[in-house]
Amino acid sequence: MTAVATTDPDSLRRLAVAALTAAGADARHAAWTAEILVEGDLMGLGTHGVLRLLTYCDRLGLGGINARADIRIERKAPSLALVDGDNGLGPAVALYALEQGLAMAAESGIAYLGCRRSNHLGALAPYALKACEAGFVLVCGTNASTTIAPWGGREARLGNNPLSIAAPCPQAPHFILDMAMSVAARGKIRKALSEGSSIPEGWAVDAAGRPTVDPAAALAGFLLPFGAHKGSGLSQAVDILSGLLSGARFLTDITPWTDFPEQPSGTGHFFLLIDPKRLLGATAYDEAIARFRKLIQDTPPADPAQPVQMPGEREQDRRDKALREGIEIPGELMAKIEALASG
Amino acid sequence: MTAVATTDPDSLRRLAVAALTAAGADARHAAWTAEILVEGDLMGLGTHGVLRLLTYCDRLGLGGINARADIRIERKAPSLALVDGDNGLGPAVALYALEQGLAMAAESGIAYLGCRRSNHLGALAPYALKACEAGFVLVCGTNASTTIAPWGGREARLGNNPLSIAAPCPQAPHFILDMAMSVAARGKIRKALSEGSSIPEGWAVDAAGRPTVDPAAALAGFLLPFGAHKGSGLSQAVDILSGLLSGARFLTDITPWTDFPEQPSGTGHFFLLIDPKRLLGATAYDEAIARFRKLIQDTPPADPAQPVQMPGEREQDRRDKALREGIEIPGELMAKIEALASG
Repeated sequence: MTAVATTDPDSLRRLAVAALTAAGADARHAAWTAEILVEGDLMGLGTHGVLRLLTYCDRLGLGGINARADIRIERKAPSLALVDGDNGLGPAVALYALEQGLAMAAESGIAYLGCRRSNHLGALAPYALKACEAGFVLVCGTNASTTIAPWGGREARLGNNPLSIAAPCPQAPHFILDMAMSVAARGKIRKALSEGSSIPEGWAVDAAGRPTVDPAAALAGFLLPFGAHKGSGLSQAVDILSGLLSGARFLTDITPWTDFPEQPSGTGHFFLLIDPKRLLGATAYDEAIARFRKLIQDTPPADPAQPVQMPGEREQDRRDKALREGIEIPGELMAKIEALASG
Repeated sequence: MTAVATTDPDSLRRLAVAALTAAGADARHAAWTAEILVEGDLMGLGTHGVLRLLTYCDRLGLGGINARADIRIERKAPSLALVDGDNGLGPAVALYALEQGLAMAAESGIAYLGCRRSNHLGALAPYALKACEAGFVLVCGTNASTTIAPWGGREARLGNNPLSIAAPCPQAPHFILDMAMSVAARGKIRKALSEGSSIPEGWAVDAAGRPTVDPAAALAGFLLPFGAHKGSGLSQAVDILSGLLSGARFLTDITPWTDFPEQPSGTGHFFLLIDPKRLLGATAYDEAIARFRKLIQDTPPADPAQPVQMPGEREQDRRDKALREGIEIPGELMAKIEALASG
């Protein structure tokens, strides 16, 4: 086994589909899930790539995720729909919703879809890229089990609910903002603990809600939201749009799959799509977004060696490189996925 | 002249209308503008209350704001519209758009409206409160002239573009998040300068893009976005939704009314309305949002004397108090508005 395995997206997708179907997943759901996870790896988002097959397959085996989910859409109006995920694979529920939403927005110019009874959906950026490639503006988000205390509180009642806002450019890179609500990810705190180092002030509080630089105390406590009360409020807003409005669970009602892998998590997502060309016409929109990107990229940089980038540019650069040179996956992870795929 | 004048909303609205019409404003536009500014004062947002009459009336007199604007809506689809503000008073353009949007969303369940050729619109929270009182979820925002450098840049190319996300509760207080994109407002830096004190690290950078605690250097430099690259990206996303998609100006193309009060600013706004009862039914929605609010408010507080509040709760508490006890306006400001009103 090599330290790093280099592969291509087609091979990695086939392997991911094989792992998921070996765990019992419906073939179409496996293909949707592989599509999103491999896009995560292509964009350099390894924490939200095929690494997730390990927990997804585990939960499929335990019955915590429904391998044969009957994913259904309920149209509420020409531009409004709810998707019932029937506790299926999160990326399958979410990509189904996105595809339905794109068709609705192509028809009526705008669509909001809320998804309930879903699960972890991977990263948001892959969905944003798909919407951009289809020419649509996307605002989307998901809720998650609780890791953050509301501002001024000392109990985790908010998820790290990521939000993505994306707008297509005539040529890539597209504008793709994809951000979670904590200052730093829990993974970084675990890394500090394993290295015996302290964490910067402002990342976390201990179990009593007091600021801490001790990673162990931080892991026993809560993540801090970025921007203090602002990130705390935005996390709640994303939960309302993705969990509450979709009829999903929200806040502390979401079952953490980390502790209860055998149970449905009840996660909710939302996708809001707008056709910018319906609003402005194709030429005016394309000219405006090209000017927008140029104004950001041409900003004089604080460090001349670090040009200012538009949100999502770095991930799309990484993706181009991975498409040319292959995707690098840790050898140990690759061996585990191959073992899952061989059943 | 007393140091503080206590007044009631009706009297203050009448006075504001008199000041605006004395400056030539259309009566309906003056009424809409007074409505929004007085709501700002009721909610304790004095920087976005009747204080703004001074600059609004100045710009009406200079022709920088069109006193007789012909505000028009262009329907692009049942749930999509653009509003051309004809360079009118910002709150008139925005409140017109909100009223049209509420009617569209009542019909079709969802509406996006972009406003172009508008001006400063006051605070967002008053619009959010109106949407909540009508039973609608609102996402709205506005762009503004540039005060923030994109993350990694050393030139102001982003506005402090506020974003509001609001959801109605069966009884007030409603969920009303209203946040701008800088760590701290410029006003706080000006205050530190006048008091001869330094500012906290992380508020601003100097003209070369280097961190500073010197308020003078900060004012010559740029505000820092909250959450570093996250606030920087979110400011850009709000500009896309409010400026670019509405056909308004965006980024550095917006004319700063502070420097050029006699010119149109070209500001853009957006309003996205969703009917939550169309998605979930009235009973299920009301129960869900009531549970959501309770879960936030019941969070054990870090400081027992400071209960955890939902976003917007403090502003709605202040509003209740001001409705009972009157609105307090600095006496000097009141005298200036009375002078404007007497023509």
